[in-house]
Amino acid sequence: MIVENNGVVLVLSGPSGAGKSSLINKIADDIGEYYFSISTTTRAMREGEEDGVHYHFVTKEEFEKEIENDNFLEYALVHGNYYGTSLLPVKQALSEGKLVVFDIDVQGNTAVKNRLGDITTSVFISPPTLSELERRLRARSTDDEDVIQNRMKMARREIQRIAEYDFLVINDDLDVAAEVLKQIAITARLKIPNDRINSFVQSWEDM
Amino acid sequence: MIVENNGVVLVLSGPSGAGKSSLINKIADDIGEYYFSISTTTRAMREGEEDGVHYHFVTKEEFEKEIENDNFLEYALVHGNYYGTSLLPVKQALSEGKLVVFDIDVQGNTAVKNRLGDITTSVFISPPTLSELERRLRARSTDDEDVIQNRMKMARREIQRIAEYDFLVINDDLDVAAEVLKQIAITARLKIPNDRINSFVQSWEDM
Repeated sequence: MIVENNGVVLVLSGPSGAGKSSLINKIADDIGEYYFSISTTTRAMREGEEDGVHYHFVTKEEFEKEIENDNFLEYALVHGNYYGTSLLPVKQALSEGKLVVFDIDVQGNTAVKNRLGDITTSVFISPPTLSELERRLRARSTDDEDVIQNRMKMARREIQRIAEYDFLVINDDLDVAAEVLKQIAITARLKIPNDRINSFVQSWEDM
Repeated sequence: MIVENNGVVLVLSGPSGAGKSSLINKIADDIGEYYFSISTTTRAMREGEEDGVHYHFVTKEEFEKEIENDNFLEYALVHGNYYGTSLLPVKQALSEGKLVVFDIDVQGNTAVKNRLGDITTSVFISPPTLSELERRLRARSTDDEDVIQNRMKMARREIQRIAEYDFLVINDDLDVAAEVLKQIAITARLKIPNDRINSFVQSWEDM
């Protein structure tokens, strides 16, 4: 099938507590080879961390060279360390025909759409209600009260921008939401990049 | 599942001879209830024709009232008779939660995207090569030589605009192309209209 080995992008956004990680774990075996986009940083590796798993660890010089080459979707300097989403590992994964999965916010979605719009399918994953989100955040019991309040404030803001996404998946029942997301991810594989379309168009009359 | 009964749109474009009708017939039983958009005309019904099957037959007054109400995606006056794609039967089918299938050209796709973009998935169906298209057009043996030449000229022009579509399906092997189109059509069902997203957003904090 012509479309099988195209690298494509699946953007997942949604509040912390929406269940993005649970969903992606649930469908992982059914969506073919995928690469989960990992941030790049210049900060020192901590104990238990692994390069290419928790972060891509690079030097300050490498990071700044990538900035110059316009290879970051987004980046920030925090306490003297750079953090960012580099396009280099993404392009590598795309060239291997993988589905690249981003877990990013609404600004990140806009950035991905601008750079990789032709091969991108975007999904907003929402908890069914604000009170259910609060319940889930408290059930984790890992966050302080002010962290929880802050996450809910951010959620309220993000929810306003759902219409910018190709699909909305309301994660009420995890099994149902996973089925829907799986369906979307499999279809995302069928997107054909513009450069392939251009070669097809150019060769169409000659073949 | 929240998304089951949304009316959504599937646009199929592609040269005459690409196999759009064969494909839609092949997947018809697998994509749920759908409505195939039919043109509206003011010309007299001919023998063997049926209202709502071959065309929606309306009076000139009805047609012109719809023009005034901006209810046409596109229309033309040919030899004193109006022909057009009316949004009224489309809106009716959408309100019944159907998948509305359009067989329209690239201009029509732009018009649908402008009016119904939030619920539209567009697919360009292409024959694998120009020579294969010519072979298929001649195999039908229903068209005059100048009609065939004209269809190929139009095909060359349409092919240039594939990038305007969400998906490209190359109809080389009918079974494979049908599988791909079925997958796309099923996922098209998962699109959620902006007005539903707005109600969701508005009710999200109250629920």
